[in-house]
Amino acid sequence: MSILVLGSISFDAIETPFSKVDKILGGSAVYTSLAASYFTKQSHSKLNLVGVVGGDFLKSDIALLQQHGVNTAGLQIKQNEKSFFWKGRYHYDMNKRDTLVVASNVMEKFDPMIPPSYQDCEFLILGSLSPSIQKQVINRLNKRPRLIVMDTIDYWIDRAWDTVMKVIQTVDILSINEAEARKIAQEYMLAKAAQKILAMGPRYLVIKKGAHGALLFDKNHTFYAPAFPLKDMTDPTGAGDAFTGGLVGHLVRCASISFEDMKVGVMIGSAIASFCVEKFGPEKLIHLTQEAINKRIQQLVALVQFKKELSGSYLS
Amino acid sequence: MSILVLGSISFDAIETPFSKVDKILGGSAVYTSLAASYFTKQSHSKLNLVGVVGGDFLKSDIALLQQHGVNTAGLQIKQNEKSFFWKGRYHYDMNKRDTLVVASNVMEKFDPMIPPSYQDCEFLILGSLSPSIQKQVINRLNKRPRLIVMDTIDYWIDRAWDTVMKVIQTVDILSINEAEARKIAQEYMLAKAAQKILAMGPRYLVIKKGAHGALLFDKNHTFYAPAFPLKDMTDPTGAGDAFTGGLVGHLVRCASISFEDMKVGVMIGSAIASFCVEKFGPEKLIHLTQEAINKRIQQLVALVQFKKELSGSYLS
Repeated sequence: MSILVLGSISFDAIETPFSKVDKILGGSAVYTSLAASYFTKQSHSKLNLVGVVGGDFLKSDIALLQQHGVNTAGLQIKQNEKSFFWKGRYHYDMNKRDTLVVASNVMEKFDPMIPPSYQDCEFLILGSLSPSIQKQVINRLNKRPRLIVMDTIDYWIDRAWDTVMKVIQTVDILSINEAEARKIAQEYMLAKAAQKILAMGPRYLVIKKGAHGALLFDKNHTFYAPAFPLKDMTDPTGAGDAFTGGLVGHLVRCASISFEDMKVGVMIGSAIASFCVEKFGPEKLIHLTQEAINKRIQQLVALVQFKKELSGSYLS
Repeated sequence: MSILVLGSISFDAIETPFSKVDKILGGSAVYTSLAASYFTKQSHSKLNLVGVVGGDFLKSDIALLQQHGVNTAGLQIKQNEKSFFWKGRYHYDMNKRDTLVVASNVMEKFDPMIPPSYQDCEFLILGSLSPSIQKQVINRLNKRPRLIVMDTIDYWIDRAWDTVMKVIQTVDILSINEAEARKIAQEYMLAKAAQKILAMGPRYLVIKKGAHGALLFDKNHTFYAPAFPLKDMTDPTGAGDAFTGGLVGHLVRCASISFEDMKVGVMIGSAIASFCVEKFGPEKLIHLTQEAINKRIQQLVALVQFKKELSGSYLS
């Protein structure tokens, strides 16, 4: 099996009500790859990165990805340019953030390059970046991957509506947050928004609700994955991308991808996302262990399990 | 078995982004009683109301409560006074509301009266009203009920901190929303806030998160009940009170009240609350059927059930 991860690779500056960092490894491709790596390693799957950085990018950060089994053959390094930079500030309610600086830099003219060894990919993750680039990567693959997962953000929905809509039509899973779902569907109620979005093309829709968990929809079913009730939270950056990494990391194991597989996938995604927010940037994702992941999954499962049967005729 | 429900009984005026009503039956005791009535009827339990209304209160509304099996022997009618009136406005995010008018009227000098036939109550629900009145009712019972459930709101936490704290120390279950939990614990993270609140006295804490479900805590366990993803929502007024009615309606059936019983109880509470918000005021709660309740419970259970086992060693 082989996963191709397309996404941004950046330096981030992050402020929260409690602390801040000025320059830290970030970007959707980084969070997604690191999260997925714990699952691909175990299933002996390839994890192929497509992205671009500037000459200022740290060799140690590339080495870090490689140590996690990420193939960087598709990572372009533009020596005379600067890496993508994002600065954001979170409020007490960390579901909300202000973007303070976006310096596209090397992303401005990003022309994604697909190495021949990537062409056999069965899973394609279109991390959040320009929908034109997401589309280009689909077009540059000789055959359609078995599963295409797309993430996008407000920024692109506002600036590139038509292209976002075109990409949505071609993917299997759309993974977005509450506000994005409402914007795309132009509908406030999520259960209604979900059906509108599914009618656009995707087979599955994941609506991430931060500290409130995630909803999974297909045309006939709904599932709810809780968020782990953390005692401390440091930085929500990348949690949604880590979620996708965990979800797809699970799906790689599945022969065919049913709603039941998706249910387990969003539980895994939620577990991995809960680690992500515990430290600044991808710090926590870098140092996970199988034991810690297994324990968190069990805690998440316990959160929604009850022994007593609520039978079909509770009142009779 | 016998439940005593103390709470407000009011006329409400409600505005939402989509519609409004000028005068509708409301109050915590009304929502809680109506919700509980479907369960007490089935378990042949008594449902005893304690409250006060003015001479302007409608005989038809009293008859309505009685038709639902609510004993109104403890309902005082002050002919020369006006009933409690509340006016509120909801935003698109209906988890947030502004209180526009609070006219205490007859509630100002409410001196709760406990009919002798109420003295054997095993379950006491202290609906949201002045904590002094909540305390008075506990004191006026000859023996402590088997279970005391307390709800309170921002308004009382801000204005009667010391008394709220005193009542909290004496109850078994505290049922509040996210903002109230953070205010009482003076702690933002809910998992930490919960432990602080449990250390104050209650055996169980329910934190209601509106459209995001509810968290249940004891000192060693956490459980998450999802909210039903509704396609339409009309008016969230009283949903939290209906939740408590459903929860206690279930607990009446339980021989001893374990965490497992509480899990089922919060699922039932969430199911009933999801009905409440579908129409203005208590309209939907008035016309529920056993069939509709059973179906909603099943839908809620299905929302968090998955077939595939996430075993203790998912990664190995």
